[in-house]
Amino acid sequence: MKTFALKGNICFSEDKDTLRIFENSFVICKDGICAGVYAEIPETYQGIPCVDYGDNLIIPGLVDLHVHAPQYSFRGLGMDLELIDWLNTHTFVEEAKYKEISYAEKAYDIFTEDLKKSATTRACIFGTIHNEATLLLMEKLEKSGTKAYVGKVNMDRNSPENLCEKNPEEAIQDTEAWIRACEKFEHVKPILTPRFIPSCTDELMEKLSEVQKKYQLPMQSHLSENYGEIAWVQELSPDTHFYGEAYDKFDLFGGNCPTIMAHCVHSGKDEVELMKKNQVFIAHCPESNTNLSSGIAPVRMYLDEGMKIGLGSDVAAGSTLSVFKAMSMAIQCSKLRWRLKDQSLAPLNVKEAFYLGTKGGGEFFGKVGSFEEGYEFDAVVLSDQSLKHPQKLSVKSRLERMIYLAEEKHITAKYVGGRKIFDCKK
Amino acid sequence: MKTFALKGNICFSEDKDTLRIFENSFVICKDGICAGVYAEIPETYQGIPCVDYGDNLIIPGLVDLHVHAPQYSFRGLGMDLELIDWLNTHTFVEEAKYKEISYAEKAYDIFTEDLKKSATTRACIFGTIHNEATLLLMEKLEKSGTKAYVGKVNMDRNSPENLCEKNPEEAIQDTEAWIRACEKFEHVKPILTPRFIPSCTDELMEKLSEVQKKYQLPMQSHLSENYGEIAWVQELSPDTHFYGEAYDKFDLFGGNCPTIMAHCVHSGKDEVELMKKNQVFIAHCPESNTNLSSGIAPVRMYLDEGMKIGLGSDVAAGSTLSVFKAMSMAIQCSKLRWRLKDQSLAPLNVKEAFYLGTKGGGEFFGKVGSFEEGYEFDAVVLSDQSLKHPQKLSVKSRLERMIYLAEEKHITAKYVGGRKIFDCKK
Repeated sequence: MKTFALKGNICFSEDKDTLRIFENSFVICKDGICAGVYAEIPETYQGIPCVDYGDNLIIPGLVDLHVHAPQYSFRGLGMDLELIDWLNTHTFVEEAKYKEISYAEKAYDIFTEDLKKSATTRACIFGTIHNEATLLLMEKLEKSGTKAYVGKVNMDRNSPENLCEKNPEEAIQDTEAWIRACEKFEHVKPILTPRFIPSCTDELMEKLSEVQKKYQLPMQSHLSENYGEIAWVQELSPDTHFYGEAYDKFDLFGGNCPTIMAHCVHSGKDEVELMKKNQVFIAHCPESNTNLSSGIAPVRMYLDEGMKIGLGSDVAAGSTLSVFKAMSMAIQCSKLRWRLKDQSLAPLNVKEAFYLGTKGGGEFFGKVGSFEEGYEFDAVVLSDQSLKHPQKLSVKSRLERMIYLAEEKHITAKYVGGRKIFDCKK
Repeated sequence: MKTFALKGNICFSEDKDTLRIFENSFVICKDGICAGVYAEIPETYQGIPCVDYGDNLIIPGLVDLHVHAPQYSFRGLGMDLELIDWLNTHTFVEEAKYKEISYAEKAYDIFTEDLKKSATTRACIFGTIHNEATLLLMEKLEKSGTKAYVGKVNMDRNSPENLCEKNPEEAIQDTEAWIRACEKFEHVKPILTPRFIPSCTDELMEKLSEVQKKYQLPMQSHLSENYGEIAWVQELSPDTHFYGEAYDKFDLFGGNCPTIMAHCVHSGKDEVELMKKNQVFIAHCPESNTNLSSGIAPVRMYLDEGMKIGLGSDVAAGSTLSVFKAMSMAIQCSKLRWRLKDQSLAPLNVKEAFYLGTKGGGEFFGKVGSFEEGYEFDAVVLSDQSLKHPQKLSVKSRLERMIYLAEEKHITAKYVGGRKIFDCKK
C-alpha cells in the first residue's frame, strides 16, 4: 500500500496549545507522508484503499527521546538508589553482559518485540559499548520497523573494567567501524553516544568531536540529572562553569549537529541559554527522575522559553517503555514541583503532555509526530472500548484517559513511515 | 471447597520490614482462614484439594482503604484542578446523576466488574447520598464477592442543590433506613460516611455521632488533604485548633469505632497525636494527592510513629483502581518529597509499599492482608510470564516488578475469605 487512508477519530497536536480532533474522519498517507485529514476522502484520492478503524482513536506515533535498550531486562527493579550508586550497583553489571552475543540476542529480542507492541514509533536508544551487540540490536529494530537512532556507547573512565573502552584510540576505531557497519540500515541510524562526562576522558571527547564532524552524526548524552553527578562533573572539568560547558568545550553540545540531552533537571541559567542557542533537544524523563530521586525538571520554563523538548521513558531508571506513562508522569511531576518547590511555574496540562510525547520529541526526527500535511506517516490505533463508562465521552476525553490508563492491550495497530508494522490481530 | 491448598511462589508481609517468600510452596485455607504456608502439605491436610499455580506468584489480596465508586465513570479525566474546584466542576455534577437508578445500574456494573478483575479483595468505598443507588452498589459487590465497607454519603451544606440532603433530620432518617437495609448483606457492611467537614452541618455531625453509637458503625471521611480545604475548615469551625478536632468534637474521630481518614497530607503535630491516640487509620492516596496538586503525605513519619496506615486508590482523583499503582506511587512520591521538601524523612522502599497495600490497610478489616496463620484467606494469583527477561529473576524481584508493571492481564485468579471469586479462564 503506497497511498491509503485510515478512518477513525483522529487526534494530533499542531503546537503545544493546539490539539486538533477530527471525529470519524480520514487521514491520508501518500508514499509514507501524511496528505492531510478530511471528513470525506477528497476526489484526488477516490478509490484508494481505506482501513476503517471505526470508533477507535488514531494518533501520531509516540516518540521516546531517551531509552537504554540493554537496561530493559531489569525494568521495574532496583530503583531505591540515586544515580551513581544505581549505575555501579545495577546498570554497569547488566550492561557488561552484552559482550556475550547470545545474551544480547535474547535480551534484544524481548526489547524489540515489546517496543513494536507499544505506541512508540520513533526512539533514540542507547546500546552498550559493544559493537556486535549494538549492531544486533539495530538489525532487530530494522526488521521490526521501528525507526530509531541507536548509539554504541562510549565510556573509557570511571567504569568497571569489563565495561570500559581500553583507550581513546581503540574506542574511536570501534566507533568508526560501527558507524560504517550501520550504512546498510534503512530505518535505524547511528547516533554518537558518549555516556556522560564522568565516563569519558577529554581525549575520547576530542576524538568523538572529530568523528562527529567527519560523519555529520547527531549525538545523545546525559545532562544535569543529579546533584552528586553535577558536583562530580565540576570536579572532573574544573575549567567549566556549568555541566553543559563540559560538552561544549569539545563542540559536542548541539549547534551544527542535532543533539539530545536527557534530563536537564538542575540546569542553571547559563546552561539553558546555551541549550537554546545551540538548539539542544531536552529529553524530559519524569519517571526516571522520580525513581532515582533526582528531582523534577522545570518543563514549564523550557516550554515558555521555546526550547526543543520531548519525552523519554529512560528505561530502566524508568520502569516502562510507555510514552503515555511519560506523559502522565510529566503532568503529575509538574504538579508536585509546583506544590513543593516553585509556584511560579504552572503545572503542565494534558494538551502539553500529548504534544511533548508526539510533535515535541518528533521534531528531532524531522517532520514527525503530527498529522499535518507533509509529516511522515506514523500512526497508532487505540482501542479503548474495554475502558467502559456509563456516560457519553468526547473523543478528547477518551484521549485524555489514554494518557493515564493506556495498557499494551489498547494499542491495536501501528504504522511507521506509511508501513504497517504491528496489528494485534496478526 | 472448604479446606484446600494453593501451590505457587508465596509472598506476604509479616510487618513493614519483613517480606516472607516461600518458593514453590503451599498455602492452606481452612474454612476461609489461612492455616499456614508449607514446603509440603502437612500430614493433617493430606488429600485436600490443591490448585497448582505453577511458577506464578501468590500474594494476599490488596486492600483499597479509600475509593469513590460513583467517580469511577470519570477516572483519568479532568484532574487539572485543585480539590474544591475539582469537586464543584466534575465530582458533584457526576455524583448527582446517581439519583437515577438506571444510571447507577450501568455505572456500578462497570465499577464492580472491574474491581472484581483487579487485585483488590477488600475496599472501603464511598457511594453517594442516594440510598437506592448505594444499596444497589452493595448488592452488586455482594454478588461479586469483594468484601467491602460501603458508605451512603452524608452532606447537607456547601453542596449543589441536587446533591444535598435537605436537612439533618431527613439525612438521619435516610441514613438509618439505609443501615437497616444493609442487614441482609454478608460480605458488604455499612460504614458512616460524612463527606468532609465543609459538607456537613454541626447538627448533622451531632446526629451522626448518635447514629454511630446506636449502631456501632465504623466511619470514613477526609482529612487535611489540601491547603484551601484546611483553611475553609478553620473558618467553618473557628472553635477548633486543627482539622481533626472538627470531627473529634462530635466524637467522630476514632477511639471507640474504627475510623479511616483519607489523605492526611498536611496534618500537624496535634492532629497526628490525636490520630495515634484514637487509632485512626490513614488512607494514603499518593496518586490523588499528586493529581489534585495537594502535596505528599509524610508516610515515613506515620510509619515511624507506628500509626495505622494503608493505601487508597481514591478514584477518581486517582485514575485507577490498581493498588499496585498506589504502591509504586507511594514510593515515587516519597522520593520526590525527600528530594524537594524534607530530607529528614527517608523515601519508602518496596517492602514498605507492599506492606501498606496488604497488611497495613488489611488491619482495618481485622486479620487481613497476610498469609500468617489465622488470617482471613484473601489471595491473588499473578501471572507475570508476559514480562519476559533474559536473566534469572528471584521471586522477590518478580514481586518488585509487579508493583511497577502489573496490568489487569497479570491478575489471573482471586480468592476472598476462602471463596474463589475470579478466574481469568472462566
